[in-house]
Amino acid sequence: FKEIHHEILTHSKAYNWLGYLSLNIGGRLSGSFEAEKAVNWSFKTLDSLKLDKVWKQKLMVPKWTRGVPEYAYITQSDFTTFTVNIAALGGSVATPLEGTRGEIIEVNSFDELHSLGQKNVEGKIVFYNTKMPDTVIQSFHGYGPAVQYRVNGAKEAAKYGAIGVIVRSVTQKLDDFPHTGSMSYGELTEEQKIPAAAISTKDADKLSTLIKLDKVVEFYFRMSCRTFPDVESYNVIGEIKGSKYPNSVIVVGAHLDSWDLGQGAHDDGAGVVQAMEVLRTFKQLKISPKHTIRVVLFMNEENGLRGAIKYKEWVKNAGEKALFAIESDAGGFAPRGYSFDVPDADFEVFESYNTLFYPYLIDRFDRGGSGADIRPLKELGTLLAGLRPDSQRYFDYHHAASDTFDKVNKRELELGAAAMASLVYLVDQIWE
Amino acid sequence: FKEIHHEILTHSKAYNWLGYLSLNIGGRLSGSFEAEKAVNWSFKTLDSLKLDKVWKQKLMVPKWTRGVPEYAYITQSDFTTFTVNIAALGGSVATPLEGTRGEIIEVNSFDELHSLGQKNVEGKIVFYNTKMPDTVIQSFHGYGPAVQYRVNGAKEAAKYGAIGVIVRSVTQKLDDFPHTGSMSYGELTEEQKIPAAAISTKDADKLSTLIKLDKVVEFYFRMSCRTFPDVESYNVIGEIKGSKYPNSVIVVGAHLDSWDLGQGAHDDGAGVVQAMEVLRTFKQLKISPKHTIRVVLFMNEENGLRGAIKYKEWVKNAGEKALFAIESDAGGFAPRGYSFDVPDADFEVFESYNTLFYPYLIDRFDRGGSGADIRPLKELGTLLAGLRPDSQRYFDYHHAASDTFDKVNKRELELGAAAMASLVYLVDQIWE
Repeated sequence: FKEIHHEILTHSKAYNWLGYLSLNIGGRLSGSFEAEKAVNWSFKTLDSLKLDKVWKQKLMVPKWTRGVPEYAYITQSDFTTFTVNIAALGGSVATPLEGTRGEIIEVNSFDELHSLGQKNVEGKIVFYNTKMPDTVIQSFHGYGPAVQYRVNGAKEAAKYGAIGVIVRSVTQKLDDFPHTGSMSYGELTEEQKIPAAAISTKDADKLSTLIKLDKVVEFYFRMSCRTFPDVESYNVIGEIKGSKYPNSVIVVGAHLDSWDLGQGAHDDGAGVVQAMEVLRTFKQLKISPKHTIRVVLFMNEENGLRGAIKYKEWVKNAGEKALFAIESDAGGFAPRGYSFDVPDADFEVFESYNTLFYPYLIDRFDRGGSGADIRPLKELGTLLAGLRPDSQRYFDYHHAASDTFDKVNKRELELGAAAMASLVYLVDQIWE
Repeated sequence: FKEIHHEILTHSKAYNWLGYLSLNIGGRLSGSFEAEKAVNWSFKTLDSLKLDKVWKQKLMVPKWTRGVPEYAYITQSDFTTFTVNIAALGGSVATPLEGTRGEIIEVNSFDELHSLGQKNVEGKIVFYNTKMPDTVIQSFHGYGPAVQYRVNGAKEAAKYGAIGVIVRSVTQKLDDFPHTGSMSYGELTEEQKIPAAAISTKDADKLSTLIKLDKVVEFYFRMSCRTFPDVESYNVIGEIKGSKYPNSVIVVGAHLDSWDLGQGAHDDGAGVVQAMEVLRTFKQLKISPKHTIRVVLFMNEENGLRGAIKYKEWVKNAGEKALFAIESDAGGFAPRGYSFDVPDADFEVFESYNTLFYPYLIDRFDRGGSGADIRPLKELGTLLAGLRPDSQRYFDYHHAASDTFDKVNKRELELGAAAMASLVYLVDQIWE
C-alpha cells in the first residue's frame, strides 16, 4: 500500500488526464461528438500504457440532444417578469416551437399532486419543489427522496393533464445552476409526453415565493431537445493478464459518458482517470497480478446503462470468472472507505483487513451499493465494491454546468486512485 | 447528536458569520485595524446570543506590518529577468530602501548550508527549496519537515553572512501564491537580522531550474515590512454557566487573528465561527450544560501565542477548574475525527464512545496534538482535543492570498461545528 500510495502521489497521471478529458473534451453525453472523442482518447491513452490488451466494445446507445439553450421566465399577475435558469431533463421532449405557457402550481410530493387531481392540474404546469434534505449526513442518502420527482414527475403530472413540469434541482446547494439528470415517461405515448426541466434552487425558491405571494403565476419555457435513433458507441477496456488465474477477472470501473452541461469532471471523469491510474500504477510498479486486472470505462451510465448491460452480457458469453469489481462514481474527493455488496462471509474478510487501510485515511468499510455500471455483474456472482469518497460537495456540482475541472483537488483525486489500487491489490493477493 | 446535527445543518449561522468575517473584515493580523474589527464584531455577535457572560480579555500583542507590496525578480547572467511572487515572512526585517541584490544559491537542507559554510554563503542570498513532501498521507505530517526552513532559515543563514533568504512556500500545491508564516531570528542582534521572504512554489521551481542552467543567478527583492512596539488587543470570550459544576470549564476555542495575505477563511475563521456556533446551538436547543461551556477566541496565534498564554495565566489565577478544551484550527473541511492529548485512561473513555460518532461520519479517534492556543492549558491538567477535518486541501490555502471564503463549503463547515458540539456535549454529560 505504501508503494502504491507513493507512486500515485508522486507520479500519477490522473490529474493531467482529467484536465484533458474535462477541458479539451468536456461534457460527453452518449451519442455526442464529445463522447466519441472520449472513447478515442481513452483508448489511445490506455494503449500507451503497454497493457496486455486494449479494446473497444461496440454497443448501441440512446442519442438525446439539448438543442439551443433553454429559455424560461415567470410572469406575475401584474405582468412583472423574471427570467429563470432551467435545463431540460435528459430524455425530455421539446416544448412546441413557440414554447409552453401556463399557470404554474407548486406541489411538494406525489401525494399532494394526487390530491389535487385532474381538475386542479389539467392545462397547468406542475412545479415540484421538494428539497434535497439538508439534515442527512451522507449526502447520497438525501438523493433518493428528492430524485424521484426528477425521474417520475413528468409521467405522474401528465396523467392529470399537466402541460409541463419544472423540477427543483437535486442539490443541497443554493445556486444558479439547473442540475439535469435522467427522467422517464414510463408507458406514456408520444402524444402524452410533456416537457420537463430542472430549475436552479435559487430560482425554485423565488418561484415558490412568488406563487405564495400572488394568486396566479404564469410560467413560460422553451426547449428544443430531441431524441434521435440509437447510435453506435463503445465501452473502452484494457487489461493486464493474470499470471496465475488469467481467466478470473478483477474489474476497475467508471463511466466515460457524462451529462452535457458541465465538463463531467467529478461525474465521472474522476472515476475514469482513477481507474486508468490503477492500471498505470500496476504496470509502473511491475506488479504482476495473479488475476487479470481489467479497467472498464462504461459508456452510457447516465441515460441508459447500455454499456453496463453490454459488458455483463459479454462476460456471461465469454465464460470467464468475474471475481471482483470496484467502481468509482461518487466524485474525485478524498476517499473515506468502500461500500461492499458481497455475501456476509466475504464482507467479514474485507473487514478483517480494515486496519491495514487506517494509516491511509481509509477507515469506513460499510455494506451498501457499489456502482451502477458494475451492479449487473451481481447476476454472475461477482463481489462488488464502490469507492466512497467524502460526499459533502458531490451534489454541489452534480449534473450541472459547475462540474468542472477546477473543482477537483489533485491530492484528493490521487488518494482515491490509490484507495482503488490498494483494494484491488489486496483482492488479487488474497482471493483464489 | 442527532438534534445537534439537525439544528446546525438547518439553522447554522456559521457560514454567514464566516462570510462577514472573511469578506467584510478580511485578513486580521495581530495589532491591525482588521484584528480590532474582528474583536468588536465577535464580541457583539456573541453578545447577541444571550449567553450568560461575554467579555474581552485585554493583552499586549506584537505588531508587524507588511508595508507596500513586495517586489522581486531573478536576473540571469545574460541579463534576462523574471519577476517572481514573494511575500515577507512574518517578523522579517525590511530590505534596505533600494532593495537587496545578490547572487542566489540553493540549498535543500541545513546540512547543505553548514557544509557550504561562510566562504560560499557570505554576501549571498540563500534559497531554501525544500519541498513539503507529497508522499505523506495526512498533510499536516509534511508540515514539520518543511516549515523549519521558514522558521529558522534566516537565523541560520545569517550566521554565515548571508544577506537575505528566500524560502519555498510550505504547500504541496504548485501555485503562484507565496505562503507566509512566522519566522524567528533567535538571539540575533538587530544588525545581524537579514530579510526573509516566501516564494511561490511555481517560482521556486523556476528559480531552481535557472540556478541549475546558469552559472550565476542574481536575485533582487524589496520589502518594507516593519515591527512596531506591542499594542493592546483582546481575547474574546463568552460562556454558558454550568448548572451543576459552574466552576468547571469546557473550552471551545479557535483563533481570531490570521495572516494578512488572504481572508483567513480556513485559518482560522472557520474555527472561530464553528466555536461560536457550538454555543449558539446549545442556547438554541436549550441544552443546560452541567459544566460551564466557554468559547474562547484567542488573539495572536499566528505570531506570538500571546492570547493563549494570557488565557492560561488568567485561568490559573482565577482558580477555576479547566476540565476540557477543544480547538478547531485545521480548516473548515469535512470532519474526520479528533486527536486527543489526554492521559491513557481518559483516551480509553473517549475511544469507548467512538461508535456513537460513526453515523455522523466521524470515525478517527487518534492520539496527538490539540491546538496551539489550548496547549498551554496542559500545565493545568486540562484534557485537550483537536478537531481533525480532512487535511488534503488545508495547505493549498494556508497563509496565502488564496485562503478566501469561496474555498469553504457550507456543509463541511457546519459538520465540523456539529462534530465540536457533539464532543462537548458528550464530555459535559459523562465527566464529573
